Amino acid sequence: MIEPDVAQRITDLERRVRRLDDERAIAAMIARYGPLVDGGAATQTAALWTADGSYTVGDTTMSGRDDVRRMVESADHQRLITRGSAHFLGPAAITVDGDDAEAFCQSLLCVRRDRDGYLVARASINRFRLTRTDAGWRIVDRQTQLLDGGERAGRLLGLVAGPER
Amino acid sequence: MIEPDVAQRITDLERRVRRLDDERAIAAMIARYGPLVDGGAATQTAALWTADGSYTVGDTTMSGRDDVRRMVESADHQRLITRGSAHFLGPAAITVDGDDAEAFCQSLLCVRRDRDGYLVARASINRFRLTRTDAGWRIVDRQTQLLDGGERAGRLLGLVAGPER
Amino acid sequence: MIEPDVAQRITDLERRVRRLDDERAIAAMIARYGPLVDGGAATQTAALWTADGSYTVGDTTMSGRDDVRRMVESADHQRLITRGSAHFLGPAAITVDGDDAEAFCQSLLCVRRDRDGYLVARASINRFRLTRTDAGWRIVDRQTQLLDGGERAGRLLGLVAGPER
Repeated sequence: MIEPDVAQRITDLERRVRRLDDERAIAAMIARYGPLVDGGAATQTAALWTADGSYTVGDTTMSGRDDVRRMVESADHQRLITRGSAHFLGPAAITVDGDDAEAFCQSLLCVRRDRDGYLVARASINRFRLTRTDAGWRIVDRQTQLLDGGERAGRLLGLVAGPER
Repeated sequence: MIEPDVAQRITDLERRVRRLDDERAIAAMIARYGPLVDGGAATQTAALWTADGSYTVGDTTMSGRDDVRRMVESADHQRLITRGSAHFLGPAAITVDGDDAEAFCQSLLCVRRDRDGYLVARASINRFRLTRTDAGWRIVDRQTQLLDGGERAGRLLGLVAGPER
Repeated sequence: MIEPDVAQRITDLERRVRRLDDERAIAAMIARYGPLVDGGAATQTAALWTADGSYTVGDTTMSGRDDVRRMVESADHQRLITRGSAHFLGPAAITVDGDDAEAFCQSLLCVRRDRDGYLVARASINRFRLTRTDAGWRIVDRQTQLLDGGERAGRLLGLVAGPER
């Protein structure tokens, strides 16, 4: 019979490794967003979301994968990537709770100028809510708000801070 | 009785998972700095440091949490976040040694312009020294130096390189 | 005798922790590239590659560590770091397969202006192919292509997307 102490240590390790695995999977998924959207991979970008996942940028909300796919395929987005763009997402602070997770990161949108490098057109705060599916972690909701000193960004930034301790 | 080989394998796993857990905790903490300071969360920003932790930017040193808190609450910083700012920290190279750790990363400070996106006002190299506390990892000292080709940044960059091998 | 179930669980943990350790080592190595090259540490930068590793930027290919070292020591690069530069690499999406690995990330090159902050001179997509050596993970090949809407970047971005699913 396996000793109780050993069984507990193995179970503890499995729990900790599961969390580490979950976080790395989520971080890797978020790291793929930029290259996917800058490469115009509409289907693969949309596949980061659940079937009915949502994505809000400013006061516009995309609902479901088709909306995300159409955003990537839109004339505006195609113009951006033809010119040359980097959707540059920073390291995420990720919290996993069972089959749910939350991640926060900042992002820059750099757009190539006619000359003289790239313009940092936007700097935003992002909040991802994610869920574990049979196919891996997927985005349930993403909120992206411009860091313009306004209330929308302030609300997301406040979620990182949590209640004052 | 548990076999010696099994005991050793479990102990090895525990040691490796502990290091992975330590690094992820430190990475998550550094990832929260930007959103906290851009959101004006003075108390929560200060709580990333130990009670007597220090933070040097250029030739100015803040000593203790109250100094960090006052920096976030200062008129200069408030002006920055009202205008719209992203303190954007990159992925950190982290080394854990028992209850101490060291982390290096680069950072950009992006500030919203009146029009035409954001200015990359500063690009810096950061060195964090951290310690394990009962409440988690905390910053003992952070050094941030502008990448201006000068000696201060050069000294921190040299610490990443280590002695020539 | 150790129970088969326990042996299997320990073996599974070892496999998963090995992957996590591999990914963290690769991420830490990529995180050191920017500070090394911005600090002019030519030998240490070159040591990130295998002896005959290659590095392609645009249509120029460096072959072997000596080529990488000479790039860091070149007059062009020295001028860049004397002025003040940040080779800012984002979080990488890493895939380990035994003793081989692949990593993708975006990068910004920020260069200090005479006044008014930093210019984002370049925004690129990077693909690293890596191998496990006795001294740790090393770069076998790095491809860096400007995000200019062109074919070279498009090919690397397409590798992140993979075949459409």
